[in-house]
Amino acid sequence: MIKNSLKEKRIYFDWAASAPWALPPGTDIPFGNPSSLHTEGREAKRILEDARLRCADVLEVPPETLYFTSGGTESNSIMLFSNLLKKSQGRVLSSMAEHASIREGMDTLEKMGRPTGKITVDSAGRVTPLTLEKAFDKFPDTRFVSIMSVNNETGAITDIEELGEVIQKKNGAPVHLHCDLVQAVGKIPIDLKNLEIDSASISAHKICGPRGIGLLYCRKPLEVFYSGGGQENGRRGGTENTHGAAALADNLEKYVTSVSDNYKFAKTRWNKLITALSKMERCIFIPKERSGSSQLFSPFILQLAFKDIPGEVMARALDDLGFAVSTGSACSSSSPERPVLVAMGIEEKLRIEGIRISQGYTTTDEDIDLLLNAITEVLKFL
Amino acid sequence: MIKNSLKEKRIYFDWAASAPWALPPGTDIPFGNPSSLHTEGREAKRILEDARLRCADVLEVPPETLYFTSGGTESNSIMLFSNLLKKSQGRVLSSMAEHASIREGMDTLEKMGRPTGKITVDSAGRVTPLTLEKAFDKFPDTRFVSIMSVNNETGAITDIEELGEVIQKKNGAPVHLHCDLVQAVGKIPIDLKNLEIDSASISAHKICGPRGIGLLYCRKPLEVFYSGGGQENGRRGGTENTHGAAALADNLEKYVTSVSDNYKFAKTRWNKLITALSKMERCIFIPKERSGSSQLFSPFILQLAFKDIPGEVMARALDDLGFAVSTGSACSSSSPERPVLVAMGIEEKLRIEGIRISQGYTTTDEDIDLLLNAITEVLKFL
Repeated sequence: MIKNSLKEKRIYFDWAASAPWALPPGTDIPFGNPSSLHTEGREAKRILEDARLRCADVLEVPPETLYFTSGGTESNSIMLFSNLLKKSQGRVLSSMAEHASIREGMDTLEKMGRPTGKITVDSAGRVTPLTLEKAFDKFPDTRFVSIMSVNNETGAITDIEELGEVIQKKNGAPVHLHCDLVQAVGKIPIDLKNLEIDSASISAHKICGPRGIGLLYCRKPLEVFYSGGGQENGRRGGTENTHGAAALADNLEKYVTSVSDNYKFAKTRWNKLITALSKMERCIFIPKERSGSSQLFSPFILQLAFKDIPGEVMARALDDLGFAVSTGSACSSSSPERPVLVAMGIEEKLRIEGIRISQGYTTTDEDIDLLLNAITEVLKFL
Repeated sequence: MIKNSLKEKRIYFDWAASAPWALPPGTDIPFGNPSSLHTEGREAKRILEDARLRCADVLEVPPETLYFTSGGTESNSIMLFSNLLKKSQGRVLSSMAEHASIREGMDTLEKMGRPTGKITVDSAGRVTPLTLEKAFDKFPDTRFVSIMSVNNETGAITDIEELGEVIQKKNGAPVHLHCDLVQAVGKIPIDLKNLEIDSASISAHKICGPRGIGLLYCRKPLEVFYSGGGQENGRRGGTENTHGAAALADNLEKYVTSVSDNYKFAKTRWNKLITALSKMERCIFIPKERSGSSQLFSPFILQLAFKDIPGEVMARALDDLGFAVSTGSACSSSSPERPVLVAMGIEEKLRIEGIRISQGYTTTDEDIDLLLNAITEVLKFL
């Protein structure tokens, strides 16, 4: 009987759907295409849906509101471009301090003739109830707003709850609130189920996950600009990145569950860093009001400048000493204008001098001490 | 001196750009963001550009014509949607047997008011010089055509060289030829540098690479609908999937370099399979003219039916015996209409009965024997 003789060996004749690949040692995720109906496909589907359930559990949202994408940029663009097919020609607004993926998407919407507009930000890069109300006054036809939670340049935390209230109070047609949570999830406590957020973007590689995988959360059924091959319930085409989805679920479980501890420890380290830096006379925080004890900033990101030292020079000097810090966000390194700092009203000289220091889960007190020593050393020579 | 004491230890303060992740054992690819300017970023950039050079070498095209994407579906959509921003409102055509990612993209173009049109296919799902000429006669305003190289349902190989000649001869404005090479690269010999292809899509996971990484080839500078964060020379946004890019380069090197052998061995196995199947009286090849010795089909894909057995029943019976075969392509498993078979003029009963068998690099002669035995066994009971 063939059945018995083959029980222990599967023979794969669906290479056109997806080919077996050399799995990283230690992983046992099947290589099947989750859209295939055979055993390998069903196993892959099970892993994918299990990953979705695990993400949903951690984020406390229904699993059917989560779509796996290739990352934060794609999640942002799916939401932005969903506006292009809507019959209502309502206006799309974004804050002036959004990530490049939103900024460029807004340019595309504009080129396509969609009415758009900008929401101004405060000196930290934050949308406030006041700036949002002003934007609604100026653009009463607004139907969609994109506002990031933690600014990736300054760490400024936007109070989404307050903004949600402004949106609720707005007269006229409902307004969709999209939130870029890429620098927020796993870093600061986020209560997705109780916030008036309609959609949000999450990226794996910012929380120690692999590249090329992210999540789009969308509370209501989503009409997408482009559905591809019908995967992800018709919202995101392309053979599903099963391995990435499982890894993202692992990391969300690990870092969202422990977020209050992570936040607390990060804050202690950041307070120490900021206190020491504020004693250095050439150090200028961006924005100037930044202080370690503030609830208004993420304790994972710090933007600052050293008087008369271009950021690139400072970053390079620190790099030579073994420290990786950044000038601007990586995603806008090709755009020397630093549009987020411009929106905050930071003068040109300071924009050029700005550097960003950002820490993570494995950063230690000793790392902070060493960084402070290194900065002191560099300042002697520059 | 700090410098010396730190030389052996790097301290990473750019978590907002990308967080360190637990690398699969055996890999030494840095976790830095290729857009960052520090050592970790530059190392990641070097790996990424090295991967691009290696892909370019294997494909024999300039490295600046290659863009890393999340896969074949995204590569197809970037090219299709590049039409949306073009000033010329020339028509976009696709063959009626394209992959779902193109089919759905064409629907989006249509919804956006872009003139579109279909190129009919022959009974194997192939665009021929005749059907292309007919399409040009019907749509003289054509500026872009999308035609897949190897059909993912039937394995039919389109003669791109012949079609290129038809395009060259067409009067009027130049026509851009986009080719979905997802089922072709590493499977059949493709001479990209000498073919009149303007752009092409490639996917890693069809040639034993990981999910979530692919290539877009575009011969000329590309104006994209959406640029994201400026990565990939402004053509594809999102933090680069460095690890995926390196893996794709590895697999292209491995399987494109050995393509003539892979093709030859696959053909020998497929001839054996087809010869044996053609002796089974209930076996119906789709299209009927399919025969093992033909140059017109990829020896990696076979579409066929067994009289009076629904494809799903056959696939399930074989799955029970340990064999993974497919009904339709995985990407259209949600679309029971099987639009490619419809376009080929296959009657409904046969469409329902169709199954797809596809092999790969590690398929053996013995696997073919076992599959034939299993089919014989199943036919006794169904």
